[in-house]
Amino acid sequence: MTRSRELHLVARPTGLPGPEVYHMAERDLPRPVQGEILVQIRWLSLDPYMRGRMNDAKSYVEPFRLNAPLDGGVIAEVMESHDPGFEAGDLVLAHGPWAEYAVLKAAGAQKLPRGSRVPPQAWLSVLGMPGMTAWTGLNRIAEAKAGETILVSSAAGAVGSLAAQLAREKGLRVIGVAGGADKCAQAVAEFGCDLCLDHRGKEARELSKEIAEAAPHGVDIYFENVGGTTLQAVLPRMNTFGRIALCGAIAWYNDPASAPPASHIWMPIIQKRLRVEGFIVSDHAAHRGAFFDEVLPLVEAGKILWHETVANGLEAAPEAFAGLLQGKNTGKQLVRIS
Amino acid sequence: MTRSRELHLVARPTGLPGPEVYHMAERDLPRPVQGEILVQIRWLSLDPYMRGRMNDAKSYVEPFRLNAPLDGGVIAEVMESHDPGFEAGDLVLAHGPWAEYAVLKAAGAQKLPRGSRVPPQAWLSVLGMPGMTAWTGLNRIAEAKAGETILVSSAAGAVGSLAAQLAREKGLRVIGVAGGADKCAQAVAEFGCDLCLDHRGKEARELSKEIAEAAPHGVDIYFENVGGTTLQAVLPRMNTFGRIALCGAIAWYNDPASAPPASHIWMPIIQKRLRVEGFIVSDHAAHRGAFFDEVLPLVEAGKILWHETVANGLEAAPEAFAGLLQGKNTGKQLVRIS
Repeated sequence: MTRSRELHLVARPTGLPGPEVYHMAERDLPRPVQGEILVQIRWLSLDPYMRGRMNDAKSYVEPFRLNAPLDGGVIAEVMESHDPGFEAGDLVLAHGPWAEYAVLKAAGAQKLPRGSRVPPQAWLSVLGMPGMTAWTGLNRIAEAKAGETILVSSAAGAVGSLAAQLAREKGLRVIGVAGGADKCAQAVAEFGCDLCLDHRGKEARELSKEIAEAAPHGVDIYFENVGGTTLQAVLPRMNTFGRIALCGAIAWYNDPASAPPASHIWMPIIQKRLRVEGFIVSDHAAHRGAFFDEVLPLVEAGKILWHETVANGLEAAPEAFAGLLQGKNTGKQLVRIS
Repeated sequence: MTRSRELHLVARPTGLPGPEVYHMAERDLPRPVQGEILVQIRWLSLDPYMRGRMNDAKSYVEPFRLNAPLDGGVIAEVMESHDPGFEAGDLVLAHGPWAEYAVLKAAGAQKLPRGSRVPPQAWLSVLGMPGMTAWTGLNRIAEAKAGETILVSSAAGAVGSLAAQLAREKGLRVIGVAGGADKCAQAVAEFGCDLCLDHRGKEARELSKEIAEAAPHGVDIYFENVGGTTLQAVLPRMNTFGRIALCGAIAWYNDPASAPPASHIWMPIIQKRLRVEGFIVSDHAAHRGAFFDEVLPLVEAGKILWHETVANGLEAAPEAFAGLLQGKNTGKQLVRIS
């Protein structure tokens, strides 16, 4: 019998989710049956989309249930396998609970290659959902081409830092936007940005002026992760027939009413004949092969850098998640469980 | 020497443009020189995009100048030709001033076919900019396919009534939205809508419920002319991977701040993976041949209906334009000058 601590969602937050919406529970796991594996969870992935799942609203993923563990991408080690595809000691990428141990369906787990120089948690970031998201937005949504100018918001974030580097590899001019001087310096030094603008404490008008100086020929592609001031600032700088790859809008997740009037974004889309396309990485799973073909060699060759912000222990997850929503992380936000 | 009355813009309006922003002037026209034609203007086209030109803001067309005549599409009769391509009595489609007479460059005028059963002002509506706009939005932007469900706003308007009929001809299920019971009845009886919903006096939630009933399989394409309540109402009913052909947002032209928070439209675009594309008909001029090939035979065969709301005399243009912005017209708003 395996005893496991689990982090439950016990209330639906308004605004920023505080510690009061979580409860640390403990229980004995059921024994795994045929087709299942018992795993010890090593790493949790924290991602902005999880904020939407805390609301009781239907979206592209089901809301988290109350009084049950939250869940998401995990890296785990197989302790006990009841499936021919896995053996004890295998590391897997899976969808699992915020817990120390779990019994998972083997069919949903993906075995990581043994002996790779890439650390296992990279399969939650550069080689996982954020990497695939960056690649998809850039290639399949925005149809980026060498010589174009791209503006990437959250340029030091998990997705943005990879979108910026992949864009640079493709031969685009890359302008980052990030919150704070440190993140901006990092976006330029490590994450492929030609330059990076700090949005902190700025009105849209001021940031827009800086974008105009940074992009004298205008912006062809906006890789949108944030909404908020950055969106307002970039719209007047978009070139006619520009594209917006609409990946997220983290600035509005906690407080949708803080957004400017919709007309402020709708009118420029007409006037500049922009193409705006929302996308969810899971729709593009059929193209994971093309993603790996392009990105895995770059990672193994050390041509793509990624950062991790690591919180230690299951009990650290709530604060780390609130920090992620406030932009306190650099790169991928992870929780190391064991 | 030809003396002509002209309607000048003398102030930039806030909100709905009233009579105080216009001034009726009168002057002697210069004599036409080589390459020019002197015309008597018969019909003015009034179009919603002209409201944007009244503001002093750069957009895809230049703002109207102050203390100069407004301008737009006109049908005119050639009085005197100094160009081998035209002779007195020719009817032309051109860009001209809100005036009784004008001297125009011959190169910018298009001679209308003589002896056609189609009345000349139809070249300002079904065979002109509104018709080409409807065709472009449907075919080149939304890529409409038989069997899909389209929602057309302003379904009794100049563009909407043609988009609805062309969609029906293509085999789509067509749901109209219009303001008032009369327009809705007309949209169904004459303009190709399977049914039409009245948005007047309704909250977005109520209209959204009616759309859900009208489109039990969801909405694949939204032909967006209005913004406002209709946009808010249709977004929750859009199918995953739906398309929005973004042609205009008349509800917000006079009062952009009346729009809901931008997050209310940005988030569903992500969640439903919508493709939103703004378009301006003039970008698609190269496809006018394809438009005529498809639409002229339908018009000549009486398969496409269009309505006109006609104001009489240059002095009637200001009130007619305000009425257009308030949705008082049915179909194309014209001013008959002579």
